[in-house]
Amino acid sequence: MGALDDDVAVTFETRARELDRLHAATDLRDRFELPAGLVYLDGNSLGALPRGVRAAVADMVGLQWGTDLVSSWNDHGWWEAPLRVGDAIAPLLGAGPGQVVVGDSTTVRLHQALHAVASLRQDRRVLLTDAASFPTDLYVAAGVAEQLGWSVVTATPDEAPAALARLAAEGRPVAAVAYSQVDYRTGRLWDLPGVTAAAHRAGALAVWDLCHSAGALEVGLDEHQVDLAVGCTYKFLNGGPGSPAYLYVAHRHQREAANVLPGWHGHARPFSMEPRYEAAAGVARFRVGTPPMLSMAALEAALSAFGGIDVATVRRRSLSLTRFLRDALEALVPGVEVVTPQNDARRGSQVSVRHPQAYGVVRAMAARGVVGDFRSPDVVRLGVAAPYLTHTDMLTAARTFRQVLDGSEQLDPSYTSRAQVT
Amino acid sequence: MGALDDDVAVTFETRARELDRLHAATDLRDRFELPAGLVYLDGNSLGALPRGVRAAVADMVGLQWGTDLVSSWNDHGWWEAPLRVGDAIAPLLGAGPGQVVVGDSTTVRLHQALHAVASLRQDRRVLLTDAASFPTDLYVAAGVAEQLGWSVVTATPDEAPAALARLAAEGRPVAAVAYSQVDYRTGRLWDLPGVTAAAHRAGALAVWDLCHSAGALEVGLDEHQVDLAVGCTYKFLNGGPGSPAYLYVAHRHQREAANVLPGWHGHARPFSMEPRYEAAAGVARFRVGTPPMLSMAALEAALSAFGGIDVATVRRRSLSLTRFLRDALEALVPGVEVVTPQNDARRGSQVSVRHPQAYGVVRAMAARGVVGDFRSPDVVRLGVAAPYLTHTDMLTAARTFRQVLDGSEQLDPSYTSRAQVT
Repeated sequence: MGALDDDVAVTFETRARELDRLHAATDLRDRFELPAGLVYLDGNSLGALPRGVRAAVADMVGLQWGTDLVSSWNDHGWWEAPLRVGDAIAPLLGAGPGQVVVGDSTTVRLHQALHAVASLRQDRRVLLTDAASFPTDLYVAAGVAEQLGWSVVTATPDEAPAALARLAAEGRPVAAVAYSQVDYRTGRLWDLPGVTAAAHRAGALAVWDLCHSAGALEVGLDEHQVDLAVGCTYKFLNGGPGSPAYLYVAHRHQREAANVLPGWHGHARPFSMEPRYEAAAGVARFRVGTPPMLSMAALEAALSAFGGIDVATVRRRSLSLTRFLRDALEALVPGVEVVTPQNDARRGSQVSVRHPQAYGVVRAMAARGVVGDFRSPDVVRLGVAAPYLTHTDMLTAARTFRQVLDGSEQLDPSYTSRAQVT
Repeated sequence: MGALDDDVAVTFETRARELDRLHAATDLRDRFELPAGLVYLDGNSLGALPRGVRAAVADMVGLQWGTDLVSSWNDHGWWEAPLRVGDAIAPLLGAGPGQVVVGDSTTVRLHQALHAVASLRQDRRVLLTDAASFPTDLYVAAGVAEQLGWSVVTATPDEAPAALARLAAEGRPVAAVAYSQVDYRTGRLWDLPGVTAAAHRAGALAVWDLCHSAGALEVGLDEHQVDLAVGCTYKFLNGGPGSPAYLYVAHRHQREAANVLPGWHGHARPFSMEPRYEAAAGVARFRVGTPPMLSMAALEAALSAFGGIDVATVRRRSLSLTRFLRDALEALVPGVEVVTPQNDARRGSQVSVRHPQAYGVVRAMAARGVVGDFRSPDVVRLGVAAPYLTHTDMLTAARTFRQVLDGSEQLDPSYTSRAQVT
């Protein structure tokens, strides 16, 4: 770097220290078991391991399963776990109790949610969604549409109000909008309240995928009268690899919404083993099969990492971190194009940049202890899980990016086969 | 007990010791962590904890998740786990590699299987199943039938050949038969080869639920040309509470069978994140969402309990145990009605008895260290996971049953709300 660059770097160092002091009270890295020195910017793919999880899982395996065996379904509260853990997640989503059920994968939960829409909007046959949605969301939407004879129409969430009006005018009223609150590639935060309100004005329901927002920012499901929502728990909620997903069904829809995947866990009287399905009251009717209790135990313990801190506080820290990371990247790394919005109200909890050598950069940065991920074709995605990251980490990331570009090593140009899991 | 009873008991004791000597080579209790002195007859609900699982799960949590983080999707083989663990289960089902995929619950897998039937038998609209099936199976069948406009016709597996012929004669050809290999209540083993062949003669497919047979007896999926099969892994496969289920799709159907739950894990090129779904080759196309890796790790480690022993050997031990338990119950416990067949070829790996005080008996036996379970309205279900049980355990169970009936304690008459999970 030249002299000017050095000055800039010193300024950023000073600023990082100041900001870390200012936000010291919300530095929760001690609540996580992270390798020393690692700058982990992939918590939007797999969140870090919260302290307490090891012990909780060991207890689940050794004591609950190994010693107490089948009686644990009663004695250790396994049976109630999908609802109990749902109620533990609910405050992070801005949801009151009794509306979130945990279990299965996001794929299954979204499938359920869209079929629930069909039961609530039987006279409508159009689903509005974003062509840039995460692939699974598009596959599920297309699959359900094929089953039900729906049309899938694409528009970004910003275009949704106009699209809703246009489709209504064409005599093709929309059953639901199905959107992600945060775009997984760009980190753009969409206007959940505005789009939900527009959907309601058009008589449609609003289904939100919260995978990339839950645990990172305020969702406000109840406040904004979201109808249904789904999300995974292994990103900003730190539930562990493949930890069970959740489905939110607003109280007002629970009685009428059908469950396309009825199992005995969702029956009104599960233990009477009746041949005919009768849905349980409340969100319990959306239980599917037997949940994976080891993964459930990890998730339940992981949520304690949010103890005593609300998501608005996490969000304030996150915004400061991503703002600083954005600035540092733009100032220190020549040739990057930051695709994550500068506007706080439009930025999720990540900073994505385009770079022609994105894949090689991600690999080389990881080798230097800064783990982000690559998204095809040219995006370096730096996820910012605020509880365990600092402004100093952000600066390290930007500097490492720069060093990698300045360095003499050959950047791996090939994105061959496998990459990391979103 | 009177003098005659005493003689009978002594005879059974001698016989138990003899049989245990005879079967000593297949006593694998050392491969499990079971509380000392416990006679655990609920392995058909939740299998015991195999040794090695604690360490495998601790490694998954501490090292793979905690330290290696997101790179474990590649570096620790997480991505391949659903197929790798499927191939590890396959020999226990009599299936060659590349036909079993692991993940999700039995509910979800059965839903997938029945929708796959619809894609393979588009011109047929009747599903034949057993009115005494496990409730979830009935709920899934009814749900899928409602979606597809199918009729559900009930007949026992023994009645299936006649029902298939009758329905064909009525111009209502059957798309598939969907049966459990072992009845969860009575322990009756149905004729999988015969029913499968009858289905095929009628142009129908055969879908088998192996929850109560896999790991306990020979299934022979390939040999008997079963079309699709599903099962849980937490019973005789000892995968832990809620461990992921599996779906078997015979090679010959994999290309044509549709996956009603498409997710990016089942895409032909998952990491290219394409907006349009294109199913992967082989059984991988039936992957759904991100699998619960902690539960997956437990399952994978648990399968090593079957190391060096084939399921035919397990079955021989199981038959000896259940035969002996049946005899002991009939000889030592007045007033019991054994509902599990005496015929080896018709008996699964449990012994169920009807008793008017069934619920109280189960509770009182459990208090004395013999854990079975209750099935409404009057069944005492004694599951026999052969690897960790002995003939002496069988005798202890029968004697404890007798002692409970002879005892002065009040048997709890009330089956109030919750019971154990099948």
